[in-house]
Amino acid sequence: MAPDFRRWIIEAYGEIYGRPHLDKKEQALIVILSLVTQGAHTQLATHIKRGMNAGLTKEQVEECIIQCLPYNGFPRVQQALTILKEIIEE
Amino acid sequence: MAPDFRRWIIEAYGEIYGRPHLDKKEQALIVILSLVTQGAHTQLATHIKRGMNAGLTKEQVEECIIQCLPYNGFPRVQQALTILKEIIEE
Amino acid sequence: MAPDFRRWIIEAYGEIYGRPHLDKKEQALIVILSLVTQGAHTQLATHIKRGMNAGLTKEQVEECIIQCLPYNGFPRVQQALTILKEIIEE
Amino acid sequence: MAPDFRRWIIEAYGEIYGRPHLDKKEQALIVILSLVTQGAHTQLATHIKRGMNAGLTKEQVEECIIQCLPYNGFPRVQQALTILKEIIEE
Amino acid sequence: MAPDFRRWIIEAYGEIYGRPHLDKKEQALIVILSLVTQGAHTQLATHIKRGMNAGLTKEQVEECIIQCLPYNGFPRVQQALTILKEIIEE
Amino acid sequence: MAPDFRRWIIEAYGEIYGRPHLDKKEQALIVILSLVTQGAHTQLATHIKRGMNAGLTKEQVEECIIQCLPYNGFPRVQQALTILKEIIEE
Repeated sequence: MAPDFRRWIIEAYGEIYGRPHLDKKEQALIVILSLVTQGAHTQLATHIKRGMNAGLTKEQVEECIIQCLPYNGFPRVQQALTILKEIIEE
Repeated sequence: MAPDFRRWIIEAYGEIYGRPHLDKKEQALIVILSLVTQGAHTQLATHIKRGMNAGLTKEQVEECIIQCLPYNGFPRVQQALTILKEIIEE
Repeated sequence: MAPDFRRWIIEAYGEIYGRPHLDKKEQALIVILSLVTQGAHTQLATHIKRGMNAGLTKEQVEECIIQCLPYNGFPRVQQALTILKEIIEE
Repeated sequence: MAPDFRRWIIEAYGEIYGRPHLDKKEQALIVILSLVTQGAHTQLATHIKRGMNAGLTKEQVEECIIQCLPYNGFPRVQQALTILKEIIEE
Repeated sequence: MAPDFRRWIIEAYGEIYGRPHLDKKEQALIVILSLVTQGAHTQLATHIKRGMNAGLTKEQVEECIIQCLPYNGFPRVQQALTILKEIIEE
Repeated sequence: MAPDFRRWIIEAYGEIYGRPHLDKKEQALIVILSLVTQGAHTQLATHIKRGMNAGLTKEQVEECIIQCLPYNGFPRVQQALTILKEIIEE
């Protein structure tokens, strides 16, 4: 279903992630921050794992999420930290 | 008005920005990404300027905003790039 | 519980859906687009089914969701397509 | 333009504000909190003035907005306090 | 994990909830309204229970949620009423 | 500035708007509904004008915006109708 959609994801990922300005870890952090801020928790686990595979440490992900606290408020940050905790405990 | 609110901003800034894990430029980028994603354009200009004073280049800010495109959609990214453009042209 | 709330839903549905300007399929698509964009996934399945009962095809729903991609971003569109897929496979 | 829309506003206001459970000041505070939280700043000034005409003090409005801070984050609260300040200084 | 985050929650709760201007029930209602409006359903149950422990009645919580309807729209209000219903039936 | 961003807009527009399933008017309505729902008022005027150039009538745009009312709430719908009114009066 939706083969165009799948193609776009691949193209967008290829194009965006292939840009030379940021390394894989920085790119992953940016996506994580966008997902945390918009409350897109369903996709968050996937992107945290991707970032950690690219070399992000648990502390770096946690620190970035916490840094959003004064701007995003407790609910979105708390839920993101819960998801991070589940990933680490897996 | 609202002296408690002003005190909390100062305390929150002091506490959050005083954490040792991220440098000033990384902290500024995180705030910028949160503001872009939630569409908080009124505060965005202030924080882009703060980040650039801390050493962020125009290209780094631009790159981070563009990196959000597939996740945030055009409207928020386009408005953020417009604000960045106005700051650079000032 | 909340009988006023139930009455309002019935009245609002009756009034809004009784308007002559749009047919049942167009009305369903508008609701689907609103729910996809605000990430109201809990209500989305109900309204997709309603729309398909009113004559919308799977392709029309899918096409409308995909059309939002550049404006809503991947997370909300991806989650909506997942919900659509579950309905079709039922 | 949109006479139905105007009628609905009047009916909704009549029905919702005519409910006996909350007094006018409590009703105004609820609307203010909804508008602050969703960042609907265009309508906020109108509803703050309405609430103050119904008897809310500047301190009560301010206190309610500040109470949202840990949940809504700085950007929305800061913008709401700016709007409140402009109303008081008028 | 994230001991700073836990400390901030305790400090924020202590500071915000210790303010003399609003009583415990009013404070709980404000948090509930923020969570309903931003769709933070994961935290909503906890805060509804806290409010009811502080003396809020089921009717007061329900009334506040319903009062948001014209401003928040059906999806968020409907989901909040479902959560309230589950708490009452427990 | 941001030539990649401009290229992506052109490509995305070309690809998405070139799909055969929906006509130009339907495509414009979908974008309008996404922008109204996410409160992206800055881009809304441009897309309403585009839709009217493609053949949408004022009544069709108005009807679609009003149809969102029970799902989006008054603030976003009211602001969208104000923008539509300004375009018609130009």
